[in-house]
Amino acid sequence: MTHFEALPPATSVISVAVDCMGGDLGIASTLPACRAFLAKHKAARLVLVGNEQAQAALGDLAVHPRCSFVMATQVVTMDDSLETALRHKKDSSMRVAITQVKDAHACAVVSAGNTGALMAIARYVLKTLNGIDRPAIASQLPNAKGGATTLLDLGANVDCTAAHLLQFALMGSALVAATNRPSVHASSVQPTVGLLNVGEEVIKGSEVIKTAGELLRAAHARGHLNFYGNVEGNDIFHGTTDIVVCDGFVGNVALKTSEGLAAMIGDFIKQEFSRNWLTKAAAIVAMPVLKAFKHKVDHRRYNGAALLGLKGLVFKSHGSADAYAFGQALDRAYDAVQHNLLDGVRTGIERALSAVPGAANLSAANAAEI
Amino acid sequence: MTHFEALPPATSVISVAVDCMGGDLGIASTLPACRAFLAKHKAARLVLVGNEQAQAALGDLAVHPRCSFVMATQVVTMDDSLETALRHKKDSSMRVAITQVKDAHACAVVSAGNTGALMAIARYVLKTLNGIDRPAIASQLPNAKGGATTLLDLGANVDCTAAHLLQFALMGSALVAATNRPSVHASSVQPTVGLLNVGEEVIKGSEVIKTAGELLRAAHARGHLNFYGNVEGNDIFHGTTDIVVCDGFVGNVALKTSEGLAAMIGDFIKQEFSRNWLTKAAAIVAMPVLKAFKHKVDHRRYNGAALLGLKGLVFKSHGSADAYAFGQALDRAYDAVQHNLLDGVRTGIERALSAVPGAANLSAANAAEI
Repeated sequence: MTHFEALPPATSVISVAVDCMGGDLGIASTLPACRAFLAKHKAARLVLVGNEQAQAALGDLAVHPRCSFVMATQVVTMDDSLETALRHKKDSSMRVAITQVKDAHACAVVSAGNTGALMAIARYVLKTLNGIDRPAIASQLPNAKGGATTLLDLGANVDCTAAHLLQFALMGSALVAATNRPSVHASSVQPTVGLLNVGEEVIKGSEVIKTAGELLRAAHARGHLNFYGNVEGNDIFHGTTDIVVCDGFVGNVALKTSEGLAAMIGDFIKQEFSRNWLTKAAAIVAMPVLKAFKHKVDHRRYNGAALLGLKGLVFKSHGSADAYAFGQALDRAYDAVQHNLLDGVRTGIERALSAVPGAANLSAANAAEI
Repeated sequence: MTHFEALPPATSVISVAVDCMGGDLGIASTLPACRAFLAKHKAARLVLVGNEQAQAALGDLAVHPRCSFVMATQVVTMDDSLETALRHKKDSSMRVAITQVKDAHACAVVSAGNTGALMAIARYVLKTLNGIDRPAIASQLPNAKGGATTLLDLGANVDCTAAHLLQFALMGSALVAATNRPSVHASSVQPTVGLLNVGEEVIKGSEVIKTAGELLRAAHARGHLNFYGNVEGNDIFHGTTDIVVCDGFVGNVALKTSEGLAAMIGDFIKQEFSRNWLTKAAAIVAMPVLKAFKHKVDHRRYNGAALLGLKGLVFKSHGSADAYAFGQALDRAYDAVQHNLLDGVRTGIERALSAVPGAANLSAANAAEI
């Protein structure tokens, strides 16, 4: 943290670009999170991107030896259309931050800004990996086994083909292998993939899902991933598989429905415990349990969704993230770089592509047919 | 309950057929629920359908003046294929119970059996209403406003067109008007309908959803329903609208994901409170709150999904229903008959059909095109 601190060798330096202006709180959450991140990761560097207001608020970050600042004059707002974000805000903090990755000034970028704009700009600036038609958004949800289930896609793609779902499965496997379970990575036991469906039987579901099941079984037979089979909605929180794959419409609904239910339950418990002096007293006695519960369902812990399938690592923080939550997203980006997520995704996709006669099988032309 | 009880006039008698063999518990849950139902609804009759085992277990129901028994030699199991249920079990308790409605021996039927088989047999025996391509399954979920949100479809239709979603909206409106909010029904304020989407803006979502939004706005303009607009997953538990419409794949995932999360949270709270003597003591103090919580998230209270769009009232109980839960499903069927749900659905659909030039606009031919 001090200027006298010995810097680690350049090869091991992990540099993360931060869009300081994104999210509901902007610099009020991003800058404290950056400060804490630098204190925690002694080998990390940050490239902060923001406007004059951000620059003025940097404080000690302005002189931090592992931190640099890049000026951007514009900010993408939550209401900006994709066109505005992409064409009329070429000097936005979001775009300049993403460009840091393209120009190899950073290994990953984190933003709490407008998801649609982030995906569109990231696709435009970084481009997608070979074999990937559509990048996907992946996030983690806590499960009953005490771990986390990775769910994708969460809303980037509302209409998906079976080939897209296979791509999501391959990318999700790479993500989990790289970030969640280093032991898995090391032991070459692949994380398990479930295909979200309305029943476990292979005959269940829409035509797209049934075809996706066939593609996933074939990929499993070739050893490209570890396909468990169909799973249902309750399996997400049960933790039946490490990864659950679905189209962006379904994933978005599942995620937001869960958020809605968790909020309702949380509010209800709060309400019931503050009903009268007796329940208020009970709340004090039950405090350790309530705290443990709050921690368990605290979505801030799982903040930081990965935008997968791009030629660069991009992480999306929830727009409402506070400093703690934004810090989680920064940590996730750091882990992804450290465990070489980008290479993992690239290798997974290439291996699957090369095994299928006619490499286009997994990409655009064929995806449209399936 | 006694033989001396004066029966109400025949015109007001509501008769419900019960598949006594369905569900995980079978007669162990259905018969006690029937007994309680007859005690509660003094003007109701039941037609119990079951095999010899059920007949032997009837007890006082065998001589109850408002109860009759119909023998069925077969039982549809949870594992039976649709073909087995439909073609090879023509004397199943499920089918015989549904036939009671067709033959006007009962006004509604309730079964806790295999959902797919129930829908298939009900469609085959009762047929669909004019203007309805596909019946839908509708259920209620508790919401933060202290009421319930009606969600449909829950899994009957995995691939839906925009026209199907409009049909679901019309049927859901009729259901809510008839059963949930008598005040709404009386005051002619229509219940609100939300279209489940990945964002509130009209430009969001898949092509099917965008077209459905147009159809719903047009139906709203004609006064056929009260369309609120797009809603997101969190709006289900928030209670933003009375009804949330989606295709059966999405609805099934939303429902089961919620069940999974509620189960995880329930287990977690139980676990935390039994961790040590201190937390066990806290549990005792917090008991009233925990009980209120358990009651709030008790899915048994919301048991009884309506199969809508058929020429007869069919209600599906959860397979795991105990006597209390099965009783809720019986109550729901009773309410639906009492409030003339069938006429409500029929009228709603006919009105919408007649307003659209070329009545086929809402039905099969056109639905395939949209």
